[in-house]
Amino acid sequence: MSTDRQRPYKTVDEVIALLRARGRRSDVPLAERRVVMDQNTKVFPVPAGIAIEAADLGGLKAEWMLPGGASSSSTTGPVLLYFHGGGYVIGSALSHRHISGELARLTNARVLSVEYALAPERPFPAAVTDGVKAYRWLLDRGHAPNAIAFGGDSAGGGLTAATMIAARDQALPMPAGAILISPWSDLTCDTETYVTREASDPMIAPAGIREMARLYLAGADPRDPLASPNFADLAGLPPLLIHVGSEEVLLHDARILAERARAAGVDVRLEVWDRMFHVWHAFYQMLEEGDAAMRKVALFLGERFKEAGAKAKA
Amino acid sequence: MSTDRQRPYKTVDEVIALLRARGRRSDVPLAERRVVMDQNTKVFPVPAGIAIEAADLGGLKAEWMLPGGASSSSTTGPVLLYFHGGGYVIGSALSHRHISGELARLTNARVLSVEYALAPERPFPAAVTDGVKAYRWLLDRGHAPNAIAFGGDSAGGGLTAATMIAARDQALPMPAGAILISPWSDLTCDTETYVTREASDPMIAPAGIREMARLYLAGADPRDPLASPNFADLAGLPPLLIHVGSEEVLLHDARILAERARAAGVDVRLEVWDRMFHVWHAFYQMLEEGDAAMRKVALFLGERFKEAGAKAKA
Repeated sequence: MSTDRQRPYKTVDEVIALLRARGRRSDVPLAERRVVMDQNTKVFPVPAGIAIEAADLGGLKAEWMLPGGASSSSTTGPVLLYFHGGGYVIGSALSHRHISGELARLTNARVLSVEYALAPERPFPAAVTDGVKAYRWLLDRGHAPNAIAFGGDSAGGGLTAATMIAARDQALPMPAGAILISPWSDLTCDTETYVTREASDPMIAPAGIREMARLYLAGADPRDPLASPNFADLAGLPPLLIHVGSEEVLLHDARILAERARAAGVDVRLEVWDRMFHVWHAFYQMLEEGDAAMRKVALFLGERFKEAGAKAKA
Repeated sequence: MSTDRQRPYKTVDEVIALLRARGRRSDVPLAERRVVMDQNTKVFPVPAGIAIEAADLGGLKAEWMLPGGASSSSTTGPVLLYFHGGGYVIGSALSHRHISGELARLTNARVLSVEYALAPERPFPAAVTDGVKAYRWLLDRGHAPNAIAFGGDSAGGGLTAATMIAARDQALPMPAGAILISPWSDLTCDTETYVTREASDPMIAPAGIREMARLYLAGADPRDPLASPNFADLAGLPPLLIHVGSEEVLLHDARILAERARAAGVDVRLEVWDRMFHVWHAFYQMLEEGDAAMRKVALFLGERFKEAGAKAKA
C-alpha cells in the first residue's frame, strides 16, 4: 500500500476495494484467523500516549488502556468496559487495541478491554457470564456504576447489550450508557439485510457468520435473549448509541435493536451511516468517516460521563 | 385494504409488502402502464383546496396546481416547475397530481406540471427541449427566475437537472433552486446499487429500467450529459435538495449527482433516508416518512423562495 501524502485518507471505495481484495475469510481455520486478527496491531498502530496494562479480574483476563497519567488502580473517574468483536470465536483485547486505545485517547477515560470466553472452546453463555463478571469486578472494587459505560463492536456490541440485560436481571445497577458499533444482536442470522446487503457487504458473508453463530450457540436457542438481545426485554437499559453502516448484512440487527429499545422506553440513538461497512470505525486511521464515527462515539461517552458527574482521568 | 383508524399510517414494511404484491411491472405493455398510472388519482386523492387548470405553453401542454386563491395568470409570486416521473415513457401531470398538488398546498406556491415528450414516440432529447420550453415560457411571460424553482421525481428528477444544464448552456438565468426526488441521473444503468439494491428495491427492476433507458435514448449515448446529468458539468446550478431512499437501485445515481455537484461548487444537500424506497414521497397519505419527506421538500422550497424574495400566493 503506497502512502499518498497529499491526501492522508483513502476514499470509502478504496478501503472497500482493499477489503474485497482481502476476501471474506470464512474458509480459513479459526486458529489461523485468531493469529491473523492479532496482527492487526502491525497494520493499525495503537495511538501514542496510551499505556497498556494487563489486568486480572478474579481469574478473567483483561487489558487496561490508560490515557496519559491515568492510573489503573484509581476507583474514581470514568471507565469504558469494552468488548471486542470477532463473532464470539476470534478477536482479543490485543487485536482491538487500536480501537480501545483511540477511545481512551478521545474520551480521556480509562478503557478496560475484556478477554471474554470464546467459542467453540467455551460456548454461550460463557461470554455473557464473563461480561457480568468484569462489570461486578469494577463495582466490587468501588467504581460507581454511573462512572462506567459499556461498549463493543460486532459480537462485542451484542455482548454489550447481553451483559446489560444479564446485569439488570441480577439486580445490578445500570452503567451510565453504552455504545454499540455494528452490533450482532440477532443470532438467527435471518433478517432481510442478510439478503439485501449480501452483495454490498465486503466483510461479512452470511455463510461465514452463520457458522460462527453455530459454534457460539452450540445447540442453544438462537432466540435466547442473552444470545440475541433483539429478542430480549430491553426495559431499564441506560442510554444507547448504535452505529451501523448502510451496506452491512447486520444493518437490520441494529434497526431492530433500536426499535425494540425505543419501544421499551430506552433512550436510544441509532445512526445509519451511508456507504459504510461493518465496523468502519476500525479504519479511522485511513478513512475519514471512520475517524468521524470514532469522534461521535467519544462525544456520546463524554456526554454520558458528564451527565453522571464522573470526571475524566481520575 | 382495511383502514386502521387508530393508526392512520401504515408501516414501511406494510407499504413495501403492498408494492411487492403489486409487482414490478416491466412485462406489461407501455400503453397499459400509462393507463394504470393515470389511475393513481383514484388511489391517491388530490389534496382539498387545490384548483387544477389546464395550460398551453405555446403548444406544450401542462397543468397548473393552484393553492387557494392563487391565479394562474399572475406573473408574480413563486412557481414550482414540476416534472413527473415514469422513466421517460409513462406518467403524466395527471398521474402525479397528488404530489404536485400536495407541494402546492405545503408551499402555498403555484405548481406548473409539464406534459413533456415521452418515448418511444418522442425520444431523447425531446423531453429536455420541452423542459427548457416550459421554463422559457415562464420567463417570457415575465416571471422572475428567482421566483421559479424546478422539481421532479425519478426520470423527472433527472430531467430537472438536465433542463437546468440546457438552460445554463443557452445562457438563461438559473432558477432559485431545485428539488430532486430519487432522481434517475445515470442512464448507463450500471452503478453499484443496481447490484447491491436489486434485492431490496421493491419498485425498480434493473431489467425494466434498462428497457426504459433504451426506449428513451433510441440510440443516443447514455453518457450524454443531457440524458445523464451525472456525466455533466454541473457548475453554475442553483442550490439543490436531493432525496433518495437507502433501499433504491437508484441510490448511487443520487450519491454521484450530489458528489459531482458539490465538486463543481454547487450548494447541494443530499439526504439518504433509511429504509425508504423509490419516490416514497408519493405515499405521503399512508406513510409517515413520505409525509415527513414532502414537508422537508416544501421547507427547502420555502427557503429558496424566501431567499429570492418571492412571496407566496401572488
